[in-house]
Formats: sequence, structure tokens, C-alpha cells
Amino acid sequence: MRHPQLNSDGKLQHLLTLEGLPRETIHHILDTAANFVSVTDREVKKVPLLRGKSVFNLFFENSTRTRTTFEIAAKRLSADVLNLNINTSSASKGESLLDTVDNLAAMHADMFVVRHASSGAPYLIAEHLNRKSGPLVNVINAGDGRHAHPTQGLLDMYTIRHFKKDFTQLRVAVVGDILHSRVARSDIHALTSLGVPEVRAIGPMTLMPSGLSELGLHVYHDMREGLRDVDVVIMLRLQNERMRGALLPSAQEYYKHYGLTEEKLALAAPDAIVMHPGPMNRGVEIDSSVADGPQSVILQQVTFGIAVRMAVMTILASN
Amino acid sequence: MRHPQLNSDGKLQHLLTLEGLPRETIHHILDTAANFVSVTDREVKKVPLLRGKSVFNLFFENSTRTRTTFEIAAKRLSADVLNLNINTSSASKGESLLDTVDNLAAMHADMFVVRHASSGAPYLIAEHLNRKSGPLVNVINAGDGRHAHPTQGLLDMYTIRHFKKDFTQLRVAVVGDILHSRVARSDIHALTSLGVPEVRAIGPMTLMPSGLSELGLHVYHDMREGLRDVDVVIMLRLQNERMRGALLPSAQEYYKHYGLTEEKLALAAPDAIVMHPGPMNRGVEIDSSVADGPQSVILQQVTFGIAVRMAVMTILASN
Amino acid sequence: MRHPQLNSDGKLQHLLTLEGLPRETIHHILDTAANFVSVTDREVKKVPLLRGKSVFNLFFENSTRTRTTFEIAAKRLSADVLNLNINTSSASKGESLLDTVDNLAAMHADMFVVRHASSGAPYLIAEHLNRKSGPLVNVINAGDGRHAHPTQGLLDMYTIRHFKKDFTQLRVAVVGDILHSRVARSDIHALTSLGVPEVRAIGPMTLMPSGLSELGLHVYHDMREGLRDVDVVIMLRLQNERMRGALLPSAQEYYKHYGLTEEKLALAAPDAIVMHPGPMNRGVEIDSSVADGPQSVILQQVTFGIAVRMAVMTILASN
Repeated sequence: MRHPQLNSDGKLQHLLTLEGLPRETIHHILDTAANFVSVTDREVKKVPLLRGKSVFNLFFENSTRTRTTFEIAAKRLSADVLNLNINTSSASKGESLLDTVDNLAAMHADMFVVRHASSGAPYLIAEHLNRKSGPLVNVINAGDGRHAHPTQGLLDMYTIRHFKKDFTQLRVAVVGDILHSRVARSDIHALTSLGVPEVRAIGPMTLMPSGLSELGLHVYHDMREGLRDVDVVIMLRLQNERMRGALLPSAQEYYKHYGLTEEKLALAAPDAIVMHPGPMNRGVEIDSSVADGPQSVILQQVTFGIAVRMAVMTILASN
Repeated sequence: MRHPQLNSDGKLQHLLTLEGLPRETIHHILDTAANFVSVTDREVKKVPLLRGKSVFNLFFENSTRTRTTFEIAAKRLSADVLNLNINTSSASKGESLLDTVDNLAAMHADMFVVRHASSGAPYLIAEHLNRKSGPLVNVINAGDGRHAHPTQGLLDMYTIRHFKKDFTQLRVAVVGDILHSRVARSDIHALTSLGVPEVRAIGPMTLMPSGLSELGLHVYHDMREGLRDVDVVIMLRLQNERMRGALLPSAQEYYKHYGLTEEKLALAAPDAIVMHPGPMNRGVEIDSSVADGPQSVILQQVTFGIAVRMAVMTILASN
Repeated sequence: MRHPQLNSDGKLQHLLTLEGLPRETIHHILDTAANFVSVTDREVKKVPLLRGKSVFNLFFENSTRTRTTFEIAAKRLSADVLNLNINTSSASKGESLLDTVDNLAAMHADMFVVRHASSGAPYLIAEHLNRKSGPLVNVINAGDGRHAHPTQGLLDMYTIRHFKKDFTQLRVAVVGDILHSRVARSDIHALTSLGVPEVRAIGPMTLMPSGLSELGLHVYHDMREGLRDVDVVIMLRLQNERMRGALLPSAQEYYKHYGLTEEKLALAAPDAIVMHPGPMNRGVEIDSSVADGPQSVILQQVTFGIAVRMAVMTILASN
């Protein structure tokens, strides 16, 4: 059975997950993004590639920052952008998710950027749209439950490629709450596809999903051990609700064991880069001296993220 | 006395209601909309007719979907669109409705799209603006209390004309909570103006306003009887608050008597079309098999709705 | 030490306050605004001066009206505008103000319009941005705590200059809750810079800050005395929380002493103009007969405000 994100020619028509996405497809997206990095650097940051297209940000879960990155990407491609916070609207009027989608599609939407608290919601939408006749509305998953956050995964890969060039010689550590992280899941799939030989998962046992070893990952509960000689450190956000929950003793305790400090970072390769998807909890999962230090590429991730989203939108619209 | 929506030449300067709107004016709007249907079908869905104009969506009552339809229509006409949810802003600072309107007009607004929980609010605004000197801000009523929803009425007429061509041979049934429905009121006025010989109102006695017979309508409390041989079925949304209120026994009971099922629809003309303004309560006022069935034109209504709103905006701006 | 709103050439790179802003700089802004007044009057109210620029409205404190004035100004300059209500987003996720700012700057923002309940927040942001390398993001203070509201101050000066031509012969009265008013503070600094020989502060002792006399102001607690022969009356909004607080007996009492009525206004110069920053509390600080009377220039302030904001944005972007 064909994956719902591919059309009959095997080209991307939606971006739902990085799982199973071929290495060449990822590199094609990153190559396209490289062209857009220069666009965002120039005086008039606008290209007419999506002129006259309507991009709908369908946020069933609130996230001003993620919405902003897609909105700015779409506007720099000259699209018309419509922001819909759906939790406060039709959904509350008892309308089904797919009725909402059908309605917006009937307005001749060209693209849906979907954020949803439930894993799989963007799949449901994409499969529903695939079954319909007429021009296709492209779907981009902007984060669904614990499942996937593919544009974050892609911008992380862009960042790694920018600083490290070659994926096939790298040691990469993903640190923190891997259990609940859609970013971790997307990163791990992409790193594997791109041929990274050693991916490490570091975190407390309570925040580590089962089955990581089967994916070829090396699991560490001792951060110092896990960071040794890695080239890339991807820190994850510790969500507030975890800190208050039963899974962790306290934020202080977490910081002691899994907070990235200069001292712990010194165990990694001397030119290791430090990444974080934001928003950061300074003093919880990362120390300010590291977040603002010379090895941090956290703000570059944000910059590359706009270009990556412009690339994904352009590729989907042209396929 | 001149109607506040007409200027001294008798041309539309606001769109407040379909009541009293001449048949030729309605047909002129529908003819203009027909041109915009093709615009929304093409690659670059944008025309420069409102370039440099400022359209303000003044939503005193929240409605993401209706706001979206006007926003997309205005953007496809190249207008600048500003969304204001007023219940959470100045209004709460104690400012009067007309002071808010005066302020926005002083920013050189060109058009106000007004949604308000109180019947008549868009009239109040339009009459106030008519009294002022200087270039006029056009007002479009996007739904006021139980009173009117003229663009919904027009898109319903567009849909009927599209599928049935001639209004003068039709039997049309409006079904459900007619008492509280501004859509029903706008539809009935338009159907009458356009010369539909037989308009039927179907619903329980508790949800039926008095005076319908005086308007020339045929009132039915038995849905099977009312649907017999009709060419068009306009279902109304049953609002949640009614279901909880004293006017109705229960949603199940309502569905049994007034829910549109395949079996009941079979009593209508074989080529009857089924319409609904959305959002639908599946299993309450309409069965899914009908909503998604071959006689349903519910999503076409949405598509035509964008074109109709583009037409109304263009006509008001040019008059 | 250089003021953070000036670059090394002494030119405006941010607009944080009118305090210390030289007279020529103010007149340059007002002259530039005069050109934009004609833009907003014409058919296509759009100029391409900020095309391809990204303006972020960062509203840490909700204000639909102020946000709208900046949004419309930026759109008429052809900028892309992004609205962020930050209280409900990242801030609540525990991210620091400066991390939020860094993130948005990394998206290649060109301009931040900042509204914040804390005095000094826009300074903190501007100083932080000044320390960074790379192209500067310009900051416009859209109101910070009790401190400043410089674009309101500038539009007030534009209005006075428009109606009175020469600042150096004027008597200006600022009336009301001066203690809590950022508008009053910005107006007083501008009036002083522009050489107004007599600025009066009128209000109850409880709403009057100390140190006004040192600034050269004349303080009046009797409004009738204070209004005598003034050319300009700037009324301030009485905020609801003051009316409920211990600082004032009641709204009725306030109106009796400090509400601007026709009878009190008759004590001013016959051609005195009446201003108010809005939203007005009719019947509290101002009587409707005055608000809507021939001496009121309140709506002209709004119109000029758009042009002034366009001027500020254009000047900052070009410096």
C-alpha cells in the first residue's frame, strides 16, 4: 500500500512524517531550503512562488511560535495566509474534524498546515483528501501528539548538514524526554535515513520509550557516558507537565542529571554543536552558559527553519 | 424613506438584508459571482479589484468559519484584511459601538464586515456612517442575531440557480428551527423576491415563528408531508442551546421527526437538491448518508459562497 | 552614554520614548507623516516602501485598537505583518522575554512593535538587540506600563501642529489621571521639546505625580482655573480600575470636577481644540456634547495616527 504522503509517482504530496522518507528526498528538501536561506537574507524577502495560493494554518492545538514560522514562510512565498484556531470555533459547535476540513477545502484552499494534540490527525486529514476528486490540498504536519514534527526534524537535519557536512561519520545524542517527544521521533527517523552510524538516546528510564534498541539506537541513562565524543547534541524540551508529574522527582534533580552544563558538554567532541527545538527551560534541561555559548546553534536552527518550511511548501505545491 | 442600504441612486451601498432587495439586484450579484467562480478555480486565485482597500472584519460574535470566508474573499480581491474580535477589546473597555466604528472609519477603512449577536447592529452602524460626510465605508452584514445573514441567503440562491436554472417553477422547503434562524429569514426573502411559487416551512410548532402564512409560506409540522415533490430542501442547523432547552424534547426525538434521512428524502422530487448552511449536526438534523449523498450540494454552497462574497464586495466598492 | 534608540550617527534606530528627542527629529517625523496623510486619502492606499519586510506586532498586553493602527500602517507600506499575542503563548511556556525576542529575530524580522504592561520592556529588548551583530531589528514602543507611548505623543503633536501651526505661542492643558498615563508623559516631553511655553497639568492631587513643577509644568487642581485661555485641551482616559480604586471617590464625582463639559470648555480660548487618545469614557472624563462638538479633533487624531506610524516605520527602516 502506498504511503498517504506520496502520490502515484512516488513524489511528496503531503509531509506527514519523516519515517520511511528516502535519503534523496530529504536531501532534495535540504538543497531547496539552501536556496531560500539566501532569500531571507536579502532586502526584499519575498518570492512569488505561491502567489495566489491560499495557505490555511489549522491549529487545533495552540502554538504561536510554530504558527508564526509557517505564516512567515508562506508570506515570503507570497501566499495568502489564513490562521484558524479551531479549538475555539467550529469544533466546539460539534462539527467533525473532516467536515471542517471539507469545508475549508471547498473554499479552494491549497495547503493545510495542521497542528493537533492527537497523534495521527494529519494522516486522517490527508487520507480523507486523497480520496476526493479535484485538485489536491497539500497537508503539512506541524506536530501531532507524540507522533511527529517533520519540519522540525528537517530543520534539525539542515542544521547538522550545514555544520557537519557529512552524516555518515557522526555520533549524535538526543537527550531528555524522548518518550513524549515528537521532535525526537522525527529526528531519529531522519538521522537513520541519512546514514548516521551512531544515534544515542540519553534520558531517565521513565522518559524512555521501549523499542529504541530495535531501531538501532544506543540507550544511555548516564548523561556523561552518553555524551562522550558525540558530534551533535540535540537537547529536548522538558515539558512542564512532566515536571509536575510522577515521572520525575523535581526540576532540580532533573537538571543535576540531565541538564546540559559546560562541564558535561566538555565530554563531547570539542567541535560538537548543541541544538534545542525551543522554547528552552533555562536551568532545567540546559544551562544558560551552554545555550548562549559558542557551541550553541539554537538560533541558527530557527533561521534555517523558515527556509526549510519555504522549501517544503514549494515542493508540495509543485508536485 | 430610503432604505439605509441604498444610496441616492438606488444602488447598494451596504448589504444589510435581502428583504426588499429587487429581483434584478439579486440576479446582478449572482451574475457577478459567476465570474468569480472561475477566478477561484484557476492557478493564481487573485484579482486586483480591491488592491489598496482596507477591509475590517468586525466580529462582535465569534465565528471562525464565517470570518474565514470573508477574509479569503477579500484577500483574493487583493484587499488588506484586518480581523478584529471586538468582544475582547475596546468594547470591554467601555467604549460604545459607534465610537469603535468611528475610530476604525477614521483609519480610512473601506469596508466593515459586521457580525453581531444583536439583531440590527449592522443597521445601526450603516445608518451612523450614512450620516457622516466624506467617503463612505461599506457595511456587509455577516449575521446579526436572529435577523439576517444576507450573504448566506445569496449563496443559497446562487446554488439553487446553478442547479435548477429557473426559480419560477420551484417548490422549496426550509426545514428546522425557523424561529431562531437568520439564514431561514434571508432565504425566504430571497426566494420570494426571485419568484419561487411555493416555499414551505417545515418544523415543530415550538420552532416556528408566527406570521409565516402572511408571507405566503406553507407551514408543515409533518416533514414527510412537507417534503413531498419539493425540488430543493434547505436544512437548518439545530443549535445546541435549543437541544438543551425547553423547546425540544431531545435530539433523538428531533431526529426522528425532522432529521433528513434517505427515506424521507425519497418523498421529494427525484432530482431534489439538499442544502445546509453548516456546521452540520450529523445524526440530529441530517443523516450522514444524505449529507454525503448524491443529492447533497452542501460543499458546492461553500465554494459558491466565496464567489458570492467577492461579488458583493466588488459591487459595494464600485457603487 | 548613547541613548539606545539612537545609532552611532545619532539617528533613530528604535522609537522608545520622546524624552530627549530633539525638536528637529520630531519635526522630521511630522513632515514625513504629512506625506502619508495624502496616501491614506487616495484610491489605492498602498506604497511599496516596506515591501518584503516583516513587521511583528508583539503584544504582551492586549490592545486590539493599537495593534490595528500599527497593522494597517505596516500593510499600507506593503510589509508582511505578523500578530503575536504573547501572553497566551511562549511566555506561558516559561520562555524568557529575551529568548522569545531572539527567536523572532532569528526569523529575520525587520521590526518589532512592542506593547508591554511593564515599563521599560521595549528598552530591554532594544538594548538586547543592539548588542547583537547582524542586521538590526527596529523596535517601536507601542506603550509600556506607565512609562511612554511615543507614537501617541507624536500623533498628538501632529494634530496640534496641523491645527495651531506654531508651538511657541501655545498654552496646552493635559487633564486627568496624569499619574498613571504614559500618554501624558510622552505628550509632556514632546510639548517641552517643541518649545510650548506653557504646559498645564490639571487633575486631582491623588492622580498627579510629583516633580511636575521641576519639569516646568503648571499644576492645577481646579479645572476651571486650569483651562482658562488654553489653546489645546488634551483629555486623558480615566481607567476603570482607578474608578474602582481608593484614589477616587466615584465616577460621578470625577465627572463633576474633571469631566470636560461645554461650560468648562468655554473658559478656554474660543478656538481651542479638544483631544483624547481614546477609548473615551463618555460622561466620565468627557461629555458627549464636547466629544462630538465642533472643537473636538479626536477622530482626526486617529487619522493622523496612521500616517505618523507609517512615518516612524519608514524612518526607522531607512536609518
